Amino acid sequence: MKERNIEEHNAKKNELMEKCYDYYCENGLYGTGMKELAAHCGVSASNLYHYFKNKDDLIIESTAYCMEKVEDDFMMLAPEYQEDVIRFLNETPEWTAKKHGKKYRMMYQVYTHPKYFEHGKRFFEGVNQRYTEYAKMLEAKIGIPYTTITPLIFIYVRACVHYALFEDKYYLEAQIEVLKKAVRLFIAEEMSKSLQINSQG
Amino acid sequence: MKERNIEEHNAKKNELMEKCYDYYCENGLYGTGMKELAAHCGVSASNLYHYFKNKDDLIIESTAYCMEKVEDDFMMLAPEYQEDVIRFLNETPEWTAKKHGKKYRMMYQVYTHPKYFEHGKRFFEGVNQRYTEYAKMLEAKIGIPYTTITPLIFIYVRACVHYALFEDKYYLEAQIEVLKKAVRLFIAEEMSKSLQINSQG
Repeated sequence: MKERNIEEHNAKKNELMEKCYDYYCENGLYGTGMKELAAHCGVSASNLYHYFKNKDDLIIESTAYCMEKVEDDFMMLAPEYQEDVIRFLNETPEWTAKKHGKKYRMMYQVYTHPKYFEHGKRFFEGVNQRYTEYAKMLEAKIGIPYTTITPLIFIYVRACVHYALFEDKYYLEAQIEVLKKAVRLFIAEEMSKSLQINSQG
Repeated sequence: MKERNIEEHNAKKNELMEKCYDYYCENGLYGTGMKELAAHCGVSASNLYHYFKNKDDLIIESTAYCMEKVEDDFMMLAPEYQEDVIRFLNETPEWTAKKHGKKYRMMYQVYTHPKYFEHGKRFFEGVNQRYTEYAKMLEAKIGIPYTTITPLIFIYVRACVHYALFEDKYYLEAQIEVLKKAVRLFIAEEMSKSLQINSQG
C-alpha cells in the first residue's frame, strides 16, 4: 500500500474499532453478531473482514485501542504535585464512571473470557509498567518512595474502576477516606525519618 | 410439590447450577449454548427448562449460587484475631486464585454484561454489608475502628480478586506490602491516641 493509502486504511480502521466497541458496550459481548456490527458501522460484513482477520481479532484490537484511549484520558487529569492530589482523588471517580463505565464493563467481559484472558494479562502488565513510571515521577514531588506510591495508585485506580463497573458509592468512599488517612500517615512517617537523619547529622 | 419432592428438586437444581457454571467457566459466557450445557449435565435441554425459566435465569441463578459458595470458602479462612492477620494476608491470594480464578472470571463476564449488570450491583451491595459486619466483629480484636477496617478489607479482597482474575503478582505483592505498612501505622496511631487519653485522665 502507498503511504496515503495506509493512512486512510488506519483512519478507517480506528473509526471502525470505536464504532464496534461502542456497539458492544451497549449490547454486550455475548449476543452480538458480526452482521449487526457491520450494519451499525454502515459497512458490509465482508468489508469488516478487510480490516480484521476475524471476529476475535476485531474484539481484541478494538478493546486494546479503546482502552488505551481511556487510560490516556485518565492520565491527562493525573496530579503532578502534592496540592493537586486531593482534587484528583475527589473528582476523578464520578467523572470516569460516567465517561468510561460502559467501556470498563466491556473490557472486563472481554479480558475475563477464556479466549481472551491472555490478552487481559498482557494489558495489565502494561498498566503496571506505566503506573510504576508515573509513581517514580511523583516520588520527588510528594515525598513518599515510589515503591509505596505505586500500590497506592493501584488501589486508587482499582477503586475507581470498580465504581465505574458497579456504581457502588459506599465501597468507593470508604476506600478514598482510608487512602487519604494512609497518605497522611506515610508522609508524616517520611518526615519524621528525615528529621531523625538531620538531627543525627 | 411434597416436601420430599421439593428437596429432591432443589438438590438436582443445585447440582445443575454447579455443573453449568463450571462448564461456563471453562468455555466462557459468549459462545456457549443451552444444548451444549444440557449435554454436559447429562440431561435434555427441555429438562433444563424444568429448573430454569430461560437461559438468562440459569446464568443469573448459577452465578449467584456458585459465588456465594466462593465467598463462604473465603470467609471460612478469614482471621478472627490480630496474630492471624499476617498468615491470612500471605496465604489467601494464591489459594483463592488457584481454587476460584475461573469462577471469578466467569462472574465478571456475567455481571459486567448489560443484561445482568443490575444483578452485579445487587451482588456487590450484599458483599459490602457482609464485610462491614465482619469488620465490626474485628474492631475490638484488632484495635482499629471498623470504619477503617472495612475499606482495608475491600482493598485486600479486591487485590486478591484481581490476582485471581489476571494472575498479576507484581500488582498483588505491592498492595499486600502497602497494606501491612498502613495497618501498622493505623494501629500505632490508635495506640498513641489511647495513651494521650490515659495520660490526660
